[in-house]
Amino acid sequence: MQRYFLETAHQTGDHVALPESIAHHWVTVLRAEPGAKAEFVDNTAHLFHGQLDAIDPATVTLTAVTTPTVELPVAVTIACGLPKQEKAEWITQKATELGVDHIVFYAADWSVAKWQPNKVAKKLARLTKIAHGAAEQAHRLRRPEVSFAKSLKEVVEQPADVKLLAYEESAKQGEQSALNQQLQAIQTGQSLLAIFGPEGGISPAEVQTAQAAQAVLVGLGPRILRTETAPLFLLSAVSMVLELQQPR
Amino acid sequence: MQRYFLETAHQTGDHVALPESIAHHWVTVLRAEPGAKAEFVDNTAHLFHGQLDAIDPATVTLTAVTTPTVELPVAVTIACGLPKQEKAEWITQKATELGVDHIVFYAADWSVAKWQPNKVAKKLARLTKIAHGAAEQAHRLRRPEVSFAKSLKEVVEQPADVKLLAYEESAKQGEQSALNQQLQAIQTGQSLLAIFGPEGGISPAEVQTAQAAQAVLVGLGPRILRTETAPLFLLSAVSMVLELQQPR
Repeated sequence: MQRYFLETAHQTGDHVALPESIAHHWVTVLRAEPGAKAEFVDNTAHLFHGQLDAIDPATVTLTAVTTPTVELPVAVTIACGLPKQEKAEWITQKATELGVDHIVFYAADWSVAKWQPNKVAKKLARLTKIAHGAAEQAHRLRRPEVSFAKSLKEVVEQPADVKLLAYEESAKQGEQSALNQQLQAIQTGQSLLAIFGPEGGISPAEVQTAQAAQAVLVGLGPRILRTETAPLFLLSAVSMVLELQQPR
Repeated sequence: MQRYFLETAHQTGDHVALPESIAHHWVTVLRAEPGAKAEFVDNTAHLFHGQLDAIDPATVTLTAVTTPTVELPVAVTIACGLPKQEKAEWITQKATELGVDHIVFYAADWSVAKWQPNKVAKKLARLTKIAHGAAEQAHRLRRPEVSFAKSLKEVVEQPADVKLLAYEESAKQGEQSALNQQLQAIQTGQSLLAIFGPEGGISPAEVQTAQAAQAVLVGLGPRILRTETAPLFLLSAVSMVLELQQPR
């Protein structure tokens, strides 16, 4: 069933006038008619079935249903060194499908891509739209936040229960257990920050910055992953260890 | 260091005339000069350092070095219902980075994309080229094979020690342990076939075909993954369980 996110809190029986973006997609694009059904998630992450009452203006009647557990048990932030635009878009889409809570693109020392200050808001708006669409398709209850940071220092100053830095040199040296150790130790409800370098890699100064902020260096296996693949590996690994190996 | 694959077996001291494709990339594109070094993998998956002796014609002298363990401990085949062309390309690139051994694109009942019989060879040639390039970049020792099958039946007739079918309905019903059980039981050196539906999903007849061939239905977590994301989740999960949780 089609899923949409609402910006307000609701309860069973609520009659809701649909925001223009939802009305446009459901009624104009998908040609829904009165009586049609869709799923709605309110701004407290509760799930509802909605029945279309009328189309002009578009209104629905909501019925609360059991909200399934579909979010990762830890809130994962991925911090990605600014990649090329196309890669930023697909990191956003794929990481959203894989359950990310927050995506930060930071201007890394060795980023080839640059975001001009006057373009940041526009780029974030586009990426946020991609994240919202992907969250609907993945049937999530939360829509990830997408933000920008001027440097890795700004990223690591934010609090997180566990901080990791994906480090290619760790992988090359055959380090194969730090990621698992960290994931085994993390508790439900905690927050995890995972940092990734851009295409050009992470600079020695950035490694120091991350370590000074208690980030643990982890390898992501023995193969060299591209900047856009590494975050997807990490999110899949988090799901494997914390969802599929520890069923709730 | 740049890495290239050779089609022949070698030993220390061999002087090798470089194939045109390597000579073009290394000498013409990267402007390597005599004395330059690169890594070479021979057709028995052994690693060499190679020093460029001359550039016209391009020849190298090889020195055997310790071959690192960079391949997954099980040979993973992913069988993907024919997706749109762009998705086929990026499944190929990303799955190669993540260690896949063989990628089969099969004409699924609900595939929207079709491969005309007279176009199959050309499409496979392009995907094979992408796989080869990704294997070099990921510093792998093996280059995955890419092939086409006319149906899922043709895919499951091939032998494999463990067969899995990624099944969205399993995920929806909260099934969260079958994948882990299968990965815990698989032995180093065995083969794993993982089957994924196309954008339109897997048909009931295909589920029956897979089950009749001993494929186990597995969920990939509680979120709905797109057809191109699911194989990457699976490969990451295999790496997490068989490489990072069971260091060799």
